[in-house]
Amino acid sequence: MTRQGGRAARGPGRRPGAPDTRGSILDVARQSFADHGYDATTLRGVARAAGVDPALVHHYFAGKHQLFLAAMDLSVDPEVLVSQVLDGDLADIGDRLVRTFLGVWGQPAHRARLTAMVRATASSENVSGLMREALTHLIFDRIAARLDRPDTALRVSAVASQLMGLAMARYVVRIEPLASLDDDAVVRLVGPTIQRYLTADL
Amino acid sequence: MTRQGGRAARGPGRRPGAPDTRGSILDVARQSFADHGYDATTLRGVARAAGVDPALVHHYFAGKHQLFLAAMDLSVDPEVLVSQVLDGDLADIGDRLVRTFLGVWGQPAHRARLTAMVRATASSENVSGLMREALTHLIFDRIAARLDRPDTALRVSAVASQLMGLAMARYVVRIEPLASLDDDAVVRLVGPTIQRYLTADL
Repeated sequence: MTRQGGRAARGPGRRPGAPDTRGSILDVARQSFADHGYDATTLRGVARAAGVDPALVHHYFAGKHQLFLAAMDLSVDPEVLVSQVLDGDLADIGDRLVRTFLGVWGQPAHRARLTAMVRATASSENVSGLMREALTHLIFDRIAARLDRPDTALRVSAVASQLMGLAMARYVVRIEPLASLDDDAVVRLVGPTIQRYLTADL
Repeated sequence: MTRQGGRAARGPGRRPGAPDTRGSILDVARQSFADHGYDATTLRGVARAAGVDPALVHHYFAGKHQLFLAAMDLSVDPEVLVSQVLDGDLADIGDRLVRTFLGVWGQPAHRARLTAMVRATASSENVSGLMREALTHLIFDRIAARLDRPDTALRVSAVASQLMGLAMARYVVRIEPLASLDDDAVVRLVGPTIQRYLTADL
């Protein structure tokens, strides 16, 4: 193959916005969030590991939170979901959390993606690290901040266990009758569990 | 390599117990249990699909239950575990179920294997079908039979959701502090959830 037939030569005028630069930054960021967690990951460290100038990371991502959201490539906005859960009486937060969870899973556009995420979480140390950070940073820390209870970390890890299991049993392994139950019945079944984990004396 | 150096020639007197026959039967059985479930799988059907005489299946396995146990290749005896859970007051069954579950997972020899099973269950339709049958047939049906409550199928599917999630959160994804909690604390945390799913008015 001649040189002309290959890909275009890179000239000195190439802009720092080539399509693969953003992707490389995201790959590095995903690895760092998975390996070191949200708190220990810095934009500067990601820039260094990706071999780019920190200003370039800032060019693409307004801050660490935005970088994390992009690295997770979520199809839903966790801010909106958390607001739905927190908006109301703390005495009903279990029901609202389950209903919000079912609402996201109930949308066919999300379900395939979420199922893939659960599978990847179960099978890969990297993805499970990323998922742990996402659950903690985007959702559970913000719910915990609302609770005026001791042991919030323990409470939210118990909630995580029931919700991951609900996703597995209802959508991935599909254990009946839970898999075919309507949302209201699932809220009645699982809502009190979440309520107890979040607000009861444990 | 000479013929003598290779494996022995198969004479007409070859017994129907060649090492790979049992393995072939198990492969077919595993597929059938995963695809069609425990109830719809028959020794005759497995023999036909494996291309062997039904008597040969009976030669290796005393019955369908034994074939299923061998196909699951479990490192623990579910009969013993279920007996531990059922042996006592129904008012404490939630705590006993969680304690038995943690006891199995707590043994290093089992943990790697069980983690692999959870991962495989999440990632493969085949394995998740097999796991669904195993949980139902070996464990949950037998616990349900002990409960004098309506909706036993719903109850045990709710229990399955919490226990699968506990396995994911504590051993696979390792969400803290749940992952490092001692067994007694996990029983206090999760036992009441299982108790409610099994015996409360839902």
